[in-house]
Amino acid sequence: MEFSCSRGELLEAVNAVSRAVSSRATIPILSGIYMEALDDVLRLVATDMELGIEYTIPVKTVQTGSTVVNARIFNEMARRLPEGPITFYISGETPALKVRYHGSELTLNTMNPQEFPLLPAILDGDHLILTQGQFKEMTRLVCFAASTDESRPWFTGVLWDISPEEVRWVATDTHRLALLSGQATESVIQQNRQVILHAKTLSDVARLLSDDEASLQITITRSQALLETDRMRVILRIIEGQYPKYQQVIPRDYKTRMTVSVKALADSVDRASLAAIGKEGSNIIKLSSDKNTLTIRANSPEVGHIYEEVFVDVGGDPIPIAFNYRYLQDALKVITTDDVYMDLTATLAPGVLRPVGEERYLYLIVPVRTV
Amino acid sequence: MEFSCSRGELLEAVNAVSRAVSSRATIPILSGIYMEALDDVLRLVATDMELGIEYTIPVKTVQTGSTVVNARIFNEMARRLPEGPITFYISGETPALKVRYHGSELTLNTMNPQEFPLLPAILDGDHLILTQGQFKEMTRLVCFAASTDESRPWFTGVLWDISPEEVRWVATDTHRLALLSGQATESVIQQNRQVILHAKTLSDVARLLSDDEASLQITITRSQALLETDRMRVILRIIEGQYPKYQQVIPRDYKTRMTVSVKALADSVDRASLAAIGKEGSNIIKLSSDKNTLTIRANSPEVGHIYEEVFVDVGGDPIPIAFNYRYLQDALKVITTDDVYMDLTATLAPGVLRPVGEERYLYLIVPVRTV
Repeated sequence: MEFSCSRGELLEAVNAVSRAVSSRATIPILSGIYMEALDDVLRLVATDMELGIEYTIPVKTVQTGSTVVNARIFNEMARRLPEGPITFYISGETPALKVRYHGSELTLNTMNPQEFPLLPAILDGDHLILTQGQFKEMTRLVCFAASTDESRPWFTGVLWDISPEEVRWVATDTHRLALLSGQATESVIQQNRQVILHAKTLSDVARLLSDDEASLQITITRSQALLETDRMRVILRIIEGQYPKYQQVIPRDYKTRMTVSVKALADSVDRASLAAIGKEGSNIIKLSSDKNTLTIRANSPEVGHIYEEVFVDVGGDPIPIAFNYRYLQDALKVITTDDVYMDLTATLAPGVLRPVGEERYLYLIVPVRTV
Repeated sequence: MEFSCSRGELLEAVNAVSRAVSSRATIPILSGIYMEALDDVLRLVATDMELGIEYTIPVKTVQTGSTVVNARIFNEMARRLPEGPITFYISGETPALKVRYHGSELTLNTMNPQEFPLLPAILDGDHLILTQGQFKEMTRLVCFAASTDESRPWFTGVLWDISPEEVRWVATDTHRLALLSGQATESVIQQNRQVILHAKTLSDVARLLSDDEASLQITITRSQALLETDRMRVILRIIEGQYPKYQQVIPRDYKTRMTVSVKALADSVDRASLAAIGKEGSNIIKLSSDKNTLTIRANSPEVGHIYEEVFVDVGGDPIPIAFNYRYLQDALKVITTDDVYMDLTATLAPGVLRPVGEERYLYLIVPVRTV
């Protein structure tokens, strides 16, 4: 194997595939990055067996071949390389990877590329095309609502509820639920289907995508999802299990609709949280409304208490309700419209936030029972 | 007590004094910020008994008085307050601090201000005036060389070696030593004296100062140092003990002087460090020179090995030497000149870095004995 390339493209590729390397790899080969010089293309691959990433960059290949190097070291190296052409080649009996730049030379230990679990080349399955921007928006608006408790794996995931007409992305930790719907640019599916993909992994993958209209090809098999861009292939394991019937928990109607500025509400909730923390505060804030005023109260024996007023437009009878402030905060951080509806049905029924002018998204919060 | 002020100035004051609050305060009152409304001035004070900070801002005082509030909560609150005037007043039988803004109100628990250990009002002692920029430069160039091992307290400090002509600031952890000298704008001292101040604390204080010529008044008593600016008073405890005779370890002469680009050397050392890490690498890099080339080598059974070439100007016979790369890296990060001298005497004698064109600073590294 021998090739030369620029530092910039190599660094991009190494950064991308490094996201699939487990920091606690128990099988030594999985701590490595597989690299293969083909005709004028370098392919890098890393996987932790849950997530696999393959990234291709243009290089000048002198001799084809492959090797595996430690991912952490290779990443550190790529960041420190000087500008200008860099040459890589294999040499020695216990093959080492030589890295040459200027007059200097780094020699890295390697692992046997035969042992590396490569990603499957072609996958058959249902097929979708999204824009990369759409995928990123989905991860921003939905993933945070998933649970981090691995004992119920399906709640750590985002449900992709796919029909020919639309895709719905849903995440919940049972205390709150986020739902976004959207249309695929193209969709070839056998029948409606539901797949669950790990929320944290989706967020990681989103960081490797662009914010724009560039397309993301998605293939879904029985057990895996494949995401493809020009330069990158990502394989995710599908989480097994039946996702709860999320439609049943979303109220079809509301009794009271408040319209409120997202920023004003977020600022007030942030301040109210000061008196909601601590052992006895239990993160609870109490909301009540009166004509054009939403009142937020919180009380903590350790800190003190707070009374916040926010200007709102109230339609319907006032319904007092109490929430864990964190669940409100999380949603108010990601909603980008100026105003939001807060739809309430009863003191002990879920409240629903809907961005004003954005029908595709809703966020549901289960209230807290207070004395 | 009742006063009103703007959020911006309050936040500046709270941020400043918060640096003196221990996150593990065992005496409850020390987890608090003392605040006292005087005629049109608010004074905030915090201390962990090692470091005390007092900060004064202009306010509109309606009624003078004092209280103590939890520092962490008060800091969080100040960050979350809205723009616009904010009113503070004490009310209730178990006095609470009320904070009013718009129509909202926060009520904070308080502690007894009589229990708070205030800073001494006036201190007699030796007197120096530095610029704030000079103080910041000192912390940047010297503090990092101090030790973090509290078992030998004087090595965790920076020595201030004060004579009527100059001040020398010295820090060492016995593996390397940084020395900066400078002239005070004004200096009224009884006799030459040496005081040791905690390096970490000096760095913390530097963050509260400006980069410019604004003056910093320094008073040094037997056991404390007082630093004063327009708005702030900082009291530091002097570390007891006799500082080692640092002059004895600084070579008076050198046999070989290399002149090298700081950036080129820093980049090469960074890359060489890749093959110097790990259990068996022991952080060692080996330097040797030949005409106009400085060669850096490192070797780690786990990673591989590296050979780096850096262009240098060598005066004198080549002297091979080995360093812990971290000690070189630390100094190359803070030296801002283009070039640096590396002065060597022998393979097992300390090497000395001196920024080219900057006589006031030197940095000494004890070499490593290799086989």
